[in-house]
Amino acid sequence: MSETDKKKNQLWAKGESLDQQVHSFTVGDDYLIDLNFLTHDCLGSAAHAVMLSEVGLLTVDHRESILKSLSEIFQASKKGEFKISPEQEDSHTAIEAYLTEKLGEAGKRIHVGRSRNDQVLLNARLFVRSETLELVYKVSELAALFSTRSAELFDIPMPGYTHLQRAMPTSVGMWLQSFLESSLDIIRSGLLNLSLLNRCPLGSGAGFGVSLPLNRERTAELLGFSAVQRSPIECQNSRGREELRLLRLISDLGILIEKISWDLQLGVMEEANFFKLPPEFTTGSSIMPQKRNPDVLELLRARSAAFRGAEDELRWITSKLPSNYHRDFQLTKPPLVRAVRSAKESLSVLSAVVKGFSVNETALSRAMSPELYATYDAFRSVKEGKPFRDAYKDTAEKTKNGKLDVESLKQDWQLIKATQLVYLKEGNTELESLSTQISNEKTRLSSVEQYLLKL
Amino acid sequence: MSETDKKKNQLWAKGESLDQQVHSFTVGDDYLIDLNFLTHDCLGSAAHAVMLSEVGLLTVDHRESILKSLSEIFQASKKGEFKISPEQEDSHTAIEAYLTEKLGEAGKRIHVGRSRNDQVLLNARLFVRSETLELVYKVSELAALFSTRSAELFDIPMPGYTHLQRAMPTSVGMWLQSFLESSLDIIRSGLLNLSLLNRCPLGSGAGFGVSLPLNRERTAELLGFSAVQRSPIECQNSRGREELRLLRLISDLGILIEKISWDLQLGVMEEANFFKLPPEFTTGSSIMPQKRNPDVLELLRARSAAFRGAEDELRWITSKLPSNYHRDFQLTKPPLVRAVRSAKESLSVLSAVVKGFSVNETALSRAMSPELYATYDAFRSVKEGKPFRDAYKDTAEKTKNGKLDVESLKQDWQLIKATQLVYLKEGNTELESLSTQISNEKTRLSSVEQYLLKL
Amino acid sequence: MSETDKKKNQLWAKGESLDQQVHSFTVGDDYLIDLNFLTHDCLGSAAHAVMLSEVGLLTVDHRESILKSLSEIFQASKKGEFKISPEQEDSHTAIEAYLTEKLGEAGKRIHVGRSRNDQVLLNARLFVRSETLELVYKVSELAALFSTRSAELFDIPMPGYTHLQRAMPTSVGMWLQSFLESSLDIIRSGLLNLSLLNRCPLGSGAGFGVSLPLNRERTAELLGFSAVQRSPIECQNSRGREELRLLRLISDLGILIEKISWDLQLGVMEEANFFKLPPEFTTGSSIMPQKRNPDVLELLRARSAAFRGAEDELRWITSKLPSNYHRDFQLTKPPLVRAVRSAKESLSVLSAVVKGFSVNETALSRAMSPELYATYDAFRSVKEGKPFRDAYKDTAEKTKNGKLDVESLKQDWQLIKATQLVYLKEGNTELESLSTQISNEKTRLSSVEQYLLKL
Amino acid sequence: MSETDKKKNQLWAKGESLDQQVHSFTVGDDYLIDLNFLTHDCLGSAAHAVMLSEVGLLTVDHRESILKSLSEIFQASKKGEFKISPEQEDSHTAIEAYLTEKLGEAGKRIHVGRSRNDQVLLNARLFVRSETLELVYKVSELAALFSTRSAELFDIPMPGYTHLQRAMPTSVGMWLQSFLESSLDIIRSGLLNLSLLNRCPLGSGAGFGVSLPLNRERTAELLGFSAVQRSPIECQNSRGREELRLLRLISDLGILIEKISWDLQLGVMEEANFFKLPPEFTTGSSIMPQKRNPDVLELLRARSAAFRGAEDELRWITSKLPSNYHRDFQLTKPPLVRAVRSAKESLSVLSAVVKGFSVNETALSRAMSPELYATYDAFRSVKEGKPFRDAYKDTAEKTKNGKLDVESLKQDWQLIKATQLVYLKEGNTELESLSTQISNEKTRLSSVEQYLLKL
Repeated sequence: MSETDKKKNQLWAKGESLDQQVHSFTVGDDYLIDLNFLTHDCLGSAAHAVMLSEVGLLTVDHRESILKSLSEIFQASKKGEFKISPEQEDSHTAIEAYLTEKLGEAGKRIHVGRSRNDQVLLNARLFVRSETLELVYKVSELAALFSTRSAELFDIPMPGYTHLQRAMPTSVGMWLQSFLESSLDIIRSGLLNLSLLNRCPLGSGAGFGVSLPLNRERTAELLGFSAVQRSPIECQNSRGREELRLLRLISDLGILIEKISWDLQLGVMEEANFFKLPPEFTTGSSIMPQKRNPDVLELLRARSAAFRGAEDELRWITSKLPSNYHRDFQLTKPPLVRAVRSAKESLSVLSAVVKGFSVNETALSRAMSPELYATYDAFRSVKEGKPFRDAYKDTAEKTKNGKLDVESLKQDWQLIKATQLVYLKEGNTELESLSTQISNEKTRLSSVEQYLLKL
Repeated sequence: MSETDKKKNQLWAKGESLDQQVHSFTVGDDYLIDLNFLTHDCLGSAAHAVMLSEVGLLTVDHRESILKSLSEIFQASKKGEFKISPEQEDSHTAIEAYLTEKLGEAGKRIHVGRSRNDQVLLNARLFVRSETLELVYKVSELAALFSTRSAELFDIPMPGYTHLQRAMPTSVGMWLQSFLESSLDIIRSGLLNLSLLNRCPLGSGAGFGVSLPLNRERTAELLGFSAVQRSPIECQNSRGREELRLLRLISDLGILIEKISWDLQLGVMEEANFFKLPPEFTTGSSIMPQKRNPDVLELLRARSAAFRGAEDELRWITSKLPSNYHRDFQLTKPPLVRAVRSAKESLSVLSAVVKGFSVNETALSRAMSPELYATYDAFRSVKEGKPFRDAYKDTAEKTKNGKLDVESLKQDWQLIKATQLVYLKEGNTELESLSTQISNEKTRLSSVEQYLLKL
Repeated sequence: MSETDKKKNQLWAKGESLDQQVHSFTVGDDYLIDLNFLTHDCLGSAAHAVMLSEVGLLTVDHRESILKSLSEIFQASKKGEFKISPEQEDSHTAIEAYLTEKLGEAGKRIHVGRSRNDQVLLNARLFVRSETLELVYKVSELAALFSTRSAELFDIPMPGYTHLQRAMPTSVGMWLQSFLESSLDIIRSGLLNLSLLNRCPLGSGAGFGVSLPLNRERTAELLGFSAVQRSPIECQNSRGREELRLLRLISDLGILIEKISWDLQLGVMEEANFFKLPPEFTTGSSIMPQKRNPDVLELLRARSAAFRGAEDELRWITSKLPSNYHRDFQLTKPPLVRAVRSAKESLSVLSAVVKGFSVNETALSRAMSPELYATYDAFRSVKEGKPFRDAYKDTAEKTKNGKLDVESLKQDWQLIKATQLVYLKEGNTELESLSTQISNEKTRLSSVEQYLLKL
Repeated sequence: MSETDKKKNQLWAKGESLDQQVHSFTVGDDYLIDLNFLTHDCLGSAAHAVMLSEVGLLTVDHRESILKSLSEIFQASKKGEFKISPEQEDSHTAIEAYLTEKLGEAGKRIHVGRSRNDQVLLNARLFVRSETLELVYKVSELAALFSTRSAELFDIPMPGYTHLQRAMPTSVGMWLQSFLESSLDIIRSGLLNLSLLNRCPLGSGAGFGVSLPLNRERTAELLGFSAVQRSPIECQNSRGREELRLLRLISDLGILIEKISWDLQLGVMEEANFFKLPPEFTTGSSIMPQKRNPDVLELLRARSAAFRGAEDELRWITSKLPSNYHRDFQLTKPPLVRAVRSAKESLSVLSAVVKGFSVNETALSRAMSPELYATYDAFRSVKEGKPFRDAYKDTAEKTKNGKLDVESLKQDWQLIKATQLVYLKEGNTELESLSTQISNEKTRLSSVEQYLLKL
């Protein structure tokens, strides 16, 4: 394709020459980033084509040839074989160029009743939908791992810390159980995000509706949305909103990851020596011959911090703007794509860490110092009728003088453990139920793809 | 009460003298900020007392006298008449001091099976629950206002802008309709937040459970939660999480407010002159005698920006920490309280603005320049069978030469308006349904208070 | 003063009734926050009065009576005895009201050639100037403390960590020395901030100059600025800029504080037991009788995190705006005042901590495990001519087999210590030089006050 | 090179097999990002080699061959012809691999007395130094452009706005002059950054010094630093600090860019029609045939917003950490490199915009409505002796009744213009002086490169 032909492929070219620097500035990395949106663009275009033909704006023949081509692009995109050239700028132009080249006039008809604003909005919505689902799926796998290792290590005592000071007895399993629960919270939250975004923006045009007899409800249904996102201005104003919800979910995931990374880092310090990472998870030093460093944990923590950088970038770009479309929105894509990719990688690596770390029972047991049991002692007095404040003072005195009967107090830990075990079971039940929801939603979205693209 | 007695009132005093500066540093403004949590603290304490008596850790007499006193504190707090002294540091100590002073031994018994971590966690949860509900309630009122004014101004044409350039026809009402829809999104999102926080943390102790036969399910039920937040470590690790969800909701509300403020500011510029604010909403200049400034709009925008500062503050404090309780969490309260108060004020003022602004139909009508109708023209050709890309080029040519038949094209606007009107009706229906949910939830939480505190 | 009279005192009142809610929304907490700007406002007004009289726009009599009254307000403000009522809204109105009430016509003349934008801009500049200076002064005191304790504890060996893993030998003194150096960096940076803000904005009017023969160079000189901030539009556009520089300085200080808080928290963990805080710096637990918690360290860390919240709030408010004055700028004051106050408190408390913590030499010495010396061993081979990569492998082998000659290698530590001691001396010399600069600047600014206000 | 050989090239490999996923997670994009640091790495290595040979730790022959090879790498890197493989991970390993392959034993000797921490710290310092200089250089070019266009358009009246409402007269030139001044502030600030970073960290080892007789002062001198960064712990603790200063500078530049983008966007709105962009700077719409959009302005604004995302990302990664090196620091590089590249592109495009936009004098003149002159009128009364507050009220009355003598008042604008013209001249003088400083510093740093690498 000649340089001039490429130029003609730009949807909005009207003959003026474009200063090259301006062009590359406005396009930025969009032609690379849009590779992430190609399959979504095909899906959206397919639904649009079906609806257009149903309302009489596209012939059945045109529709069929368009759907066939979209299916080709979809499959090529999946394999990473469909390219977007910098001149094409974005996925929409690349797809339309392919269609026009292949189908001639039919290709020129697909854009009727849509604007690029419309398309990119839908692309982002579909991307967020599928990546949110993928993310909660991966978190559910991680949750299952937390559950398994929690059960395995439930009886190994470990000091519980508050203010980073030894506080009360807990166990390695109970500590891991807490991450099962945090994971469930993220899954719940992610699934609610899916319910919030379950509205189809396609058909908003440039943000002011379309003077054609489009059937927006039908497109919504074809794409697996439960409803139409009504107001066209609101459609444009919501640009970045679902993206932000996903980045917040990732940022919350970051808090979970930071906590476990920190906990493990403290636990592998020579001073504690509670945990050990497999050698593959540590690296050496270029200057200190003796060292094995838990770089993976530090990078997990640092990536989680960086998630918030992406969240902030998105907020900076989308905030403090008047209504309607602004080109600023184009820059919402890089932080989104970056954070999603990084979050998925972090989840894989964290899963490997959770699976791989081992426990030093001797060191843990040595760390179970008597004062950890002081609160149990005070509660015993309470059970015998003493007001708590008085019991508290007595126990403080006993602890200072080494008079705590630790062996006996250890029995009270069993009481706590029994409750936590019930909780673990309940957590597993909830995980199962959420996993079923995830799996059903995956099936549903996959049918949408298969039906529309006749895969 | 003597200085020494006051010292004794600090829950954790064990006889050492406390350096005064350290004391005031650690307390900070907590004794003032905790005024916002007093009623919640009473509620939590009442539920705890009822449960304790049910499991045999508190006599019925003690329970009754405690509930009576808590009810007194609750009512005094509502009227702003219950104070916390700096020496008391926080609401928990202030309440326990009142109980102990009034009831002697009974007062000393209420803290059994709880830690301050437990209490503050519950306080924050109850605060976020009631303020989230209050916020969505106020947003629903604003939404109703958007709806009313939208209907009133539905037929007044207004240019729709993209890239801040005139794009296609819209109307004042359709523009306001978009804010009805954004409001609905915030309400939906807030209600989902309520479903996520619907778990009771009380009974987690210091984060490692309690070796007493507490009935956590019962406390949860009494406080109107649907379930127990299971893992005690997770309870502590979740500190700040629901607070952050509320601040994010407020931050999203900020985007709505920024948009309408910006739109109105652009609209009241002399250059556009589309809108007019009532004189009470403008202020003068100290140097320029002729000026009337829309300060209210600017401050609405600036406060919305500041919401994100509060969100950031909360994230900075709660992120990058190991598991379990850290005193850092104390500082989660100021940004929370600050943003909630500011958001509620902003909603009141925005409502007044939405109610009060008027429209300059002449200026708007003058701004409806012919090129706004170009897209309608292209779509007409499409309906007649021309491929969109060709229609697009023809219309561009027509527009340049002033050949658009605007009067005829205006009829196509009716098509769009008809759809939007249906949407407005649907939006109203959804608002009604959400308002019912809000109202039911308000009733439910109010019964919880009345039952527990025998109000 | 009657309600009506108070209304008249609002600089911009032109007779309309003001909706009370709008009023309280636009004023916000400004009348309280402006207490922090009163002395600066007096100073700026005094310089303006002197200049006005010199260019013939104010009689000498009026000038003298104005200066006398400003001096009274200045002194009352210093003692916290000058109040601003909510109706007055801000310091400018409060001061002008006082002058007008006291001096009649003379009071009405002081505002000539100024706008409130002008005044508030100058106030902020003067506030930032004096608080930056105060802050670096306090940091210089902290630096001196780091230096003293560093010298005192220079010879006490301590493991140096990288990746939180034991790496190479260092000493408690060397560790403290690093904070001397970080403090010097903050001081240097703060002093450069002062050089950047050394331009007087007064005389920019509302941002478009003043059509009166003002002598801006003279006002600048009287206020101790080295030059005029030239362009009036730029003056307004710079609103928030110097404020942000100060908040960034405080945010950098936060990084220092976070590091030492974290280091001390890790060092007081039972697992390490390297450091001990005096009892006044720890607090107890409400549930666990045995605990002493280093809350002060956690709150130092949390406040440092919150500094960034203030920085963010300021950035959110001042960014993404067109040129010239917007009322948004009013909201730049709360985060500024909040962060400055919190930073000064944190510095005081941190100083007390640095002075007060003690060292457990036994625990530290036990932690000096042999592998810390491995790098020294490798470097010895290098000195004997072996390529580093080969030496590295040999030493790794030796370390694994416990063949390191630690006693001999300890001598190499002396080499490092000798260099660090020279550095400590150089650091002290630099601190002295910077302290002299601070002290000179303090004297200079104090003379400015005394001269202008005839104190 | 075989896969096994590549593995051997990892500086820290000690024979264990590395899980591939962990490897790619820890390396991340480092091998690509480090392409930006190659020339700096060569420079640092060259200085290290010279110093090593001077203190007798490297033979003259080895030094000479090393310098020759480094020079080759440097030149290849400049041309983008030197690659880093994912297995090599970073620039340090890639360079050492090249040296070892080419020079055998000599290559193995270059790492003596350095750690990777040391190298990457120096790389970052050198990168920040050269990019800060490049950035202020580009800003100085932009400043010159502002100055030229300001002079050209100095006499064209334009309404000055406050609160986005017409306030007082200004001119297109005066508005542009404000950006000259903002640019000067950024240049000043950038040059001070250079003075703050003017300390050489090389020789800090892993953060605890090096037990070899290194001559750090000499390395510092060779690399063009004015001093050694003394404390090795502080060296590591300062990681990210200078990077943050640069990102803050870029973030400040963002505020400038946002302002001018916003101003121009408002000015090209049909409602104002003050300015016009050349067609190359606008793009069309895919749906609306008539549109020309100022996308470039919107993207300039959005990129500026994104600068703060990079700043935030860096802050998130480097904050809330204990002392000493953590692997987290690796992730400081992506936001740094990303923001620097984007800032330079934005400066180029903004320069083109400033050069290219044109002015619609008719529209501007039509917008010069009488009330803009009201303040001049009030000041005239003041000059005649009336107290300002009374003059203010009189003028307000006159303005309302259309009694302002605008033609006469226009003369007062001349007074203001005369002052601003003097300011413009002073601004130009300062720009010249700063440009000379920049140019001298460029020459100096270029000599450093030429001397060390014998270019």
